[in-house]
Amino acid sequence: MPSLSVYKNDLDYSYAPGIFPSMECLRHRPETVRRLLLHSSASGREGADRLRALAEELGVRVEEADRVLARISGKENCFAAAVFAKFSDDLAPDRPHVVLHNPGDSGNVGTILRTSLGFGVEDAALIRPCVDLFDPRTVRASMGSLFSLRVRVYEDFEEYRRDFPDRPLYPFMLDASLPLGEVLREKRPPDWTLIFGNEGRGLPAAFSALGQAVRIESNDRVDSLNLAVAAAIGIYGFTRPGN
Amino acid sequence: MPSLSVYKNDLDYSYAPGIFPSMECLRHRPETVRRLLLHSSASGREGADRLRALAEELGVRVEEADRVLARISGKENCFAAAVFAKFSDDLAPDRPHVVLHNPGDSGNVGTILRTSLGFGVEDAALIRPCVDLFDPRTVRASMGSLFSLRVRVYEDFEEYRRDFPDRPLYPFMLDASLPLGEVLREKRPPDWTLIFGNEGRGLPAAFSALGQAVRIESNDRVDSLNLAVAAAIGIYGFTRPGN
Repeated sequence: MPSLSVYKNDLDYSYAPGIFPSMECLRHRPETVRRLLLHSSASGREGADRLRALAEELGVRVEEADRVLARISGKENCFAAAVFAKFSDDLAPDRPHVVLHNPGDSGNVGTILRTSLGFGVEDAALIRPCVDLFDPRTVRASMGSLFSLRVRVYEDFEEYRRDFPDRPLYPFMLDASLPLGEVLREKRPPDWTLIFGNEGRGLPAAFSALGQAVRIESNDRVDSLNLAVAAAIGIYGFTRPGN
Repeated sequence: MPSLSVYKNDLDYSYAPGIFPSMECLRHRPETVRRLLLHSSASGREGADRLRALAEELGVRVEEADRVLARISGKENCFAAAVFAKFSDDLAPDRPHVVLHNPGDSGNVGTILRTSLGFGVEDAALIRPCVDLFDPRTVRASMGSLFSLRVRVYEDFEEYRRDFPDRPLYPFMLDASLPLGEVLREKRPPDWTLIFGNEGRGLPAAFSALGQAVRIESNDRVDSLNLAVAAAIGIYGFTRPGN
């Protein structure tokens, strides 16, 4: 493996910055891990020692690499980073999906992945153009939950539809007529897909014809809700036991 | 007014960076506005022209201040900033409150203020030690909703309790026994207070004795939910019509 580069979109590997995200990477995607970087001052910290032990158990090469860690994280206090090969999964056809259409903020995407896993939604798709799923900032915001999910990036929404032509789709739209509360009062199919649009633009109007458009019942005193907030409210609602 | 400084906690004024947050500041807190800074290239943009017109209507001094805008925002493309005097309100005693105990991230605080306003919860308290409510990053993350809410910062939770001794308190805690879904099935009083803890530490254990502790039903595959996500799920649930 050549010397490590500051993260760029066209690399075939990325970094899980931080002890906790690195641990999640080693635990849940050990086959993707190329090496583990540790800071010289990390030794003796409980999390770092457990991380090193797990790496050794897995046969992952461990390097003390203070300068590389500072360079790739842009921070002086990054104690660990797993270097992992990017991956792409087949989403489960019979399970709930979360689809993010053209998301523009890595923090939002990472937070939504974390929320999805926390409520047992294990399949997530991103539709291009979008932020980089493997950007270390996304990985960090996901707190490593990226490594426990099945994830796939699609060139456009049609490509997702070709893979899954018959799923019940629920696009979340500001101008939808059906409030979320009403959707949740009805019985829901087990293989639902929730779709959330871009932070600024939302979803294109055409999505309302693709499925049952849903509106979260916020008032008009805010322009919209934060994307990660809207997704959390949708995911929480859909994963509650139906009435 | 002396020359404008990069934002610091001990100033008695702050900045609402961006056209939309500045507009919210002029609309909803005109009495706090000391001046409006505009970028020379903002002229002709619809939002900026409306902002200037409103400032002139209100008798607010408008300055072209490209360098000041770049300096205080840290960005080259900040087109406007309202300079406003910090404020502190009396919270409404008979309305719902959101209380953030020791929050550590300005983005989370701003996002929660935006969510609160969007669901009609107009009263918010922060308990110290906490991030600065008036930090321009908080203002920006709130999308200016800070200016439409009643807000107050308390030295500690006891001070809040002295102001509001008899309110039904709902601390959100990871180890609470009562799931949110069950709380929401019961009738709720109109003057509830939702309390959310620090991003890393949550709420101190003693809070469970102060009211009805609530747990959001996430699984153990994530350490916790993001703070703004947890608050959104709680606020959305509590503001739905009861059963």
